[in-house]
Amino acid sequence: MIIVLKPHSKEERILDMMKRIEAMGLRVERTTGVDYTILALVGDTSRISQSTLKTDDIVHKIIKVQEPFKRVNRFFKPEDTVVQVGEHAIGGGEFVVMAGPCSVESEKQLLETAHSVKKSGAHFLRGGAYKPRTSPYAFQGLGKKGLDILKLAKDETGLGIVTELLSIEQLDLFMKDVDIIQIGARNMQNFSLLKELGKTKKPILLKRGISATIEEWLMSAEYIMSEGNKNIILCERGIRTYEGYTRNTLDLSAVPMVKRLSHLPVIVDPSHAAGLWWMVEPLSKGAIVVGADGLMVEVHPEPEKALSDGAQSLKLENFRDLMGEVEVLVRTQGKSLKPKKKGVMPWMES
Amino acid sequence: MIIVLKPHSKEERILDMMKRIEAMGLRVERTTGVDYTILALVGDTSRISQSTLKTDDIVHKIIKVQEPFKRVNRFFKPEDTVVQVGEHAIGGGEFVVMAGPCSVESEKQLLETAHSVKKSGAHFLRGGAYKPRTSPYAFQGLGKKGLDILKLAKDETGLGIVTELLSIEQLDLFMKDVDIIQIGARNMQNFSLLKELGKTKKPILLKRGISATIEEWLMSAEYIMSEGNKNIILCERGIRTYEGYTRNTLDLSAVPMVKRLSHLPVIVDPSHAAGLWWMVEPLSKGAIVVGADGLMVEVHPEPEKALSDGAQSLKLENFRDLMGEVEVLVRTQGKSLKPKKKGVMPWMES
Amino acid sequence: MIIVLKPHSKEERILDMMKRIEAMGLRVERTTGVDYTILALVGDTSRISQSTLKTDDIVHKIIKVQEPFKRVNRFFKPEDTVVQVGEHAIGGGEFVVMAGPCSVESEKQLLETAHSVKKSGAHFLRGGAYKPRTSPYAFQGLGKKGLDILKLAKDETGLGIVTELLSIEQLDLFMKDVDIIQIGARNMQNFSLLKELGKTKKPILLKRGISATIEEWLMSAEYIMSEGNKNIILCERGIRTYEGYTRNTLDLSAVPMVKRLSHLPVIVDPSHAAGLWWMVEPLSKGAIVVGADGLMVEVHPEPEKALSDGAQSLKLENFRDLMGEVEVLVRTQGKSLKPKKKGVMPWMES
Amino acid sequence: MIIVLKPHSKEERILDMMKRIEAMGLRVERTTGVDYTILALVGDTSRISQSTLKTDDIVHKIIKVQEPFKRVNRFFKPEDTVVQVGEHAIGGGEFVVMAGPCSVESEKQLLETAHSVKKSGAHFLRGGAYKPRTSPYAFQGLGKKGLDILKLAKDETGLGIVTELLSIEQLDLFMKDVDIIQIGARNMQNFSLLKELGKTKKPILLKRGISATIEEWLMSAEYIMSEGNKNIILCERGIRTYEGYTRNTLDLSAVPMVKRLSHLPVIVDPSHAAGLWWMVEPLSKGAIVVGADGLMVEVHPEPEKALSDGAQSLKLENFRDLMGEVEVLVRTQGKSLKPKKKGVMPWMES
Repeated sequence: MIIVLKPHSKEERILDMMKRIEAMGLRVERTTGVDYTILALVGDTSRISQSTLKTDDIVHKIIKVQEPFKRVNRFFKPEDTVVQVGEHAIGGGEFVVMAGPCSVESEKQLLETAHSVKKSGAHFLRGGAYKPRTSPYAFQGLGKKGLDILKLAKDETGLGIVTELLSIEQLDLFMKDVDIIQIGARNMQNFSLLKELGKTKKPILLKRGISATIEEWLMSAEYIMSEGNKNIILCERGIRTYEGYTRNTLDLSAVPMVKRLSHLPVIVDPSHAAGLWWMVEPLSKGAIVVGADGLMVEVHPEPEKALSDGAQSLKLENFRDLMGEVEVLVRTQGKSLKPKKKGVMPWMES
Repeated sequence: MIIVLKPHSKEERILDMMKRIEAMGLRVERTTGVDYTILALVGDTSRISQSTLKTDDIVHKIIKVQEPFKRVNRFFKPEDTVVQVGEHAIGGGEFVVMAGPCSVESEKQLLETAHSVKKSGAHFLRGGAYKPRTSPYAFQGLGKKGLDILKLAKDETGLGIVTELLSIEQLDLFMKDVDIIQIGARNMQNFSLLKELGKTKKPILLKRGISATIEEWLMSAEYIMSEGNKNIILCERGIRTYEGYTRNTLDLSAVPMVKRLSHLPVIVDPSHAAGLWWMVEPLSKGAIVVGADGLMVEVHPEPEKALSDGAQSLKLENFRDLMGEVEVLVRTQGKSLKPKKKGVMPWMES
Repeated sequence: MIIVLKPHSKEERILDMMKRIEAMGLRVERTTGVDYTILALVGDTSRISQSTLKTDDIVHKIIKVQEPFKRVNRFFKPEDTVVQVGEHAIGGGEFVVMAGPCSVESEKQLLETAHSVKKSGAHFLRGGAYKPRTSPYAFQGLGKKGLDILKLAKDETGLGIVTELLSIEQLDLFMKDVDIIQIGARNMQNFSLLKELGKTKKPILLKRGISATIEEWLMSAEYIMSEGNKNIILCERGIRTYEGYTRNTLDLSAVPMVKRLSHLPVIVDPSHAAGLWWMVEPLSKGAIVVGADGLMVEVHPEPEKALSDGAQSLKLENFRDLMGEVEVLVRTQGKSLKPKKKGVMPWMES
Repeated sequence: MIIVLKPHSKEERILDMMKRIEAMGLRVERTTGVDYTILALVGDTSRISQSTLKTDDIVHKIIKVQEPFKRVNRFFKPEDTVVQVGEHAIGGGEFVVMAGPCSVESEKQLLETAHSVKKSGAHFLRGGAYKPRTSPYAFQGLGKKGLDILKLAKDETGLGIVTELLSIEQLDLFMKDVDIIQIGARNMQNFSLLKELGKTKKPILLKRGISATIEEWLMSAEYIMSEGNKNIILCERGIRTYEGYTRNTLDLSAVPMVKRLSHLPVIVDPSHAAGLWWMVEPLSKGAIVVGADGLMVEVHPEPEKALSDGAQSLKLENFRDLMGEVEVLVRTQGKSLKPKKKGVMPWMES
């Protein structure tokens, strides 16, 4: 941490501040410029509140030198984290596709979707049982019954299940039945929830908040990891901007940035990003080539009858076509849609 | 709801869509323009999913005619809602000020603050016991002990308590000890939490999410109200923009807009908005004259030692000076810092 | 300027960088931390390209210590700049109001407006002769004829004229006929234009770009001032955000921030900010109390027939009422709507 | 255009409004709903000011049915526009790459770059002679001398020249020496300039403004085209958001959206988007697969000595490597880096 002091700060005040900082067990290196005096703090500054230091009126600016995240920081763990879910190694060169409807609506709808996306090459089945909706009057999901239908689809197809958790109360149920617990954009900073998930070993899919900075997103992953759970998959899903033709602006530059800052795997959700089914294809392709480790795509047998988010859902045959395109591009990036053999990755997270 | 169909849509498809909509119990009025055909839906359209209608490829645009919020909508309840908390009628012409530290740090700190802000004219004592922090390594609040200190301060000063709830598990405790439950920006769309709060009668202070639209904010209030709790106070606290000199951009135009759209009272938090103590005064003044019903201000006896948010906290004497300025302006707006006599407002919410 | 080097940077590379910087005539102070090495550059760093320094792969971060603006910086000129236009001293405790239609549409429309706003207490007459419109098919202003009508209105009422310049070609005309040249949001970074204006002594009203940072806005003022023209008035007019109920989000916190960073006067345009006539009153009041030096307000005798921006225009009688409210609040801030006597301000800019 | 009237609007007022609209030569179709009355306007509504209609207090909402752009609208011209520049047909299945330094700094620098990027496969040479810089103290370009150096490079390599025009005064010079005139983000709404360019036949590269909506961007293209110039190439270069790790947020979803709304070709500038050289590769790849017609990439022989934007410039060898990757992906999209034979495209713009 670097503290830049205002010009003409009194010597006495400067020495006083240096003493206070040294009393916290840090070393202070002082540089006296023409106008500004600079204090460089050497040691563990993670407990110092910048906001509080700023209240001292001799302070001009405070600058962080280190990123505030530690466990998720690639600087401290250079090798990629691979999250193993069943036979799939997410982040380990296998490109994984999670597909399914926005909401579980009925046994028929989900089973038809599950069988079809399985055949088209999807690795996981997504589907919301508990739905966070902006309006209290909108369809809120089938709840427990939705989970049961997901389990049934898993039994029939073998596809692992990804579904969203809204509340700590559902955790026991999810621990039992769900393969990857999704935390949605609106709950990215629901820290009580993150801490509880951190105490489990369950793979967590952490969506970026609707206007979360990359730093905040990684700090939310840090909440989970700081409690012991290393099985985190990040998911970019578009951020809020002023542009109205698309629902959100998919931030594909976030993918290479996050992979540089962190060792965690990153997937992309092109469906929620644009909110338009015909844009899922180009954005999926974009996600692959910027380095994502997978995709999460909404698929529905009859989008025109969907109870939520129909406009962004692919039909079954469109998803099948998409997978063809995905395969071509995945190969150009040296990745594969096929699981690698187990046991070959000594650097795997367990 | 209005559906604009694409040019050259086949007559057969148009008739088919009209039939489907009429089957939902709605009346459809059709207008045939030069290029576009327009369907106006007459009746209760709240159950229709726009997203699903959009999947029909003859649809060009869908336009909402009515706001999606109902119970919080001034259109359906033109008179102001007044939230009565103890002797204070928030939204009823009394301008209320909630003051106190970001976090409860110690008995000494809180009591000193409470006595001082009471003397300066504050109506409520704010202070965080459970703190939502971006970093898992930052001070997380004193928890239950913080609540006990708040109660002690209330006993000594008579000031009602406003403090933030993070999780449903804390609800019983808060129902007993807290006068106004604050829902922070990060939890504005924690719908599970909102529904539970809706089942109580406790006054809720609902902060605007960090990048929430006014519509989303009102829809979150609708969640609470749709479960039965009418005692909602909205709080504008700045939105995220690209500007870096201030932490957030205080959206003062949201105040007159929300008061036009809704009957709920609105207060402003100038401390979190800018993140700078010296900007609290001008922004507080701005809040008063754009029509806010109150303020929430951070005050700390020693901001330079605060465990969180020191940079935006006023010192005790600065808050006292602020209250002098507040009083002058409040009077110019025909409001008062003094509680009105009870019983004079027949339109009061209970 | 401070350069933070990456951990494990080779000593040889560090020494090499230090040498290169010293070769530019700067002094370098080095601090060696646990992980990071820090170089503080002492001297005039304004010619160093941060972007170029960053290309060196041992660089982790570069931090500016000083603001990049100089002539507009309050740090180097602590006293307020006052722009004298006729008898009005903008920025010198007089609160000035500029009023008039979005566009000059006819002699009748402008003269009626001019006489009315004069009577209501306005100090300047605004009105567009050359209009920058998003659509090439929208009304583009009366051009030269509009200027002539403005002059006529000035002759009849004595009100100084504020109108927007779009192109260098119009400069001669504007130098002769116009009292304050307005540079609109879209031209805030039209640097060729700014440089030309800098060579005159004409008062310039510089609107903030639609998504300009405060720093960029001040740098544009710096362009004008660096060529010699000190007569600059800044104008906040709302920034682009995701919020849709208002056209822009008026950034009232920019007013105290700019007044702290710079010595230039700042006025506020509440009409373009919200795009809604009924919001002009609360936002005008907000502008006064956060410290603005004046207002620019759109007024039209028949908004329902306006060729542009009717929805945000006040009727003549609404403007008269507004001025009553303005006067009350201006007085609470120790300012006045009346010009101060000339000659009393030794710190006046000429 | 659709006008939604407020509930309880008086019949007399409604009839009056209908008459006024019919007097403009439009047909009005009326639908009376339970709460709202809707007027659908049939005919050419492009001259009606929405803002002015909104001033009528019986109006609840006004909704555009048609996009406001016409000549650039794919609806009215379904086939792709191809801009022919020398042997290259931009937008016609050939993927074009424009490469070169941010600024022309010296003959040596530019010639070295030109020969190298030519060898690596670039189709055009970019380089700024007149530079728009945020600071008046930063390097402003070599001006006329820069243009001469660009011509020299063209003579030596045969590469067509793309360079930015800042002011109408430079137009004659650019008409003679430049192959594609670039209009930068800051001048996207410099309408005086756009109109002049519209009177030429010169290919124009129109960058998206730093916070321009897609609609505004297309309206600026409409300005050029409405004056007669059809040779417009759009360029997405990142938009301003709150995210700080990248300089701008590259909006890759804008590419398929613009190609759907308009027939104009679109290229992507990944260098200015992120501001980071190492991100140019993934973002370039993303641009190709979302459907862009080309790239504009900054390349410098010695980025560490660049006078501007060094941090985002590729070294010569990095650009060579990039072109290898580009070629692979371009082929997967059914496009080619090689010019198609002339004369095969009957739908070509001249």
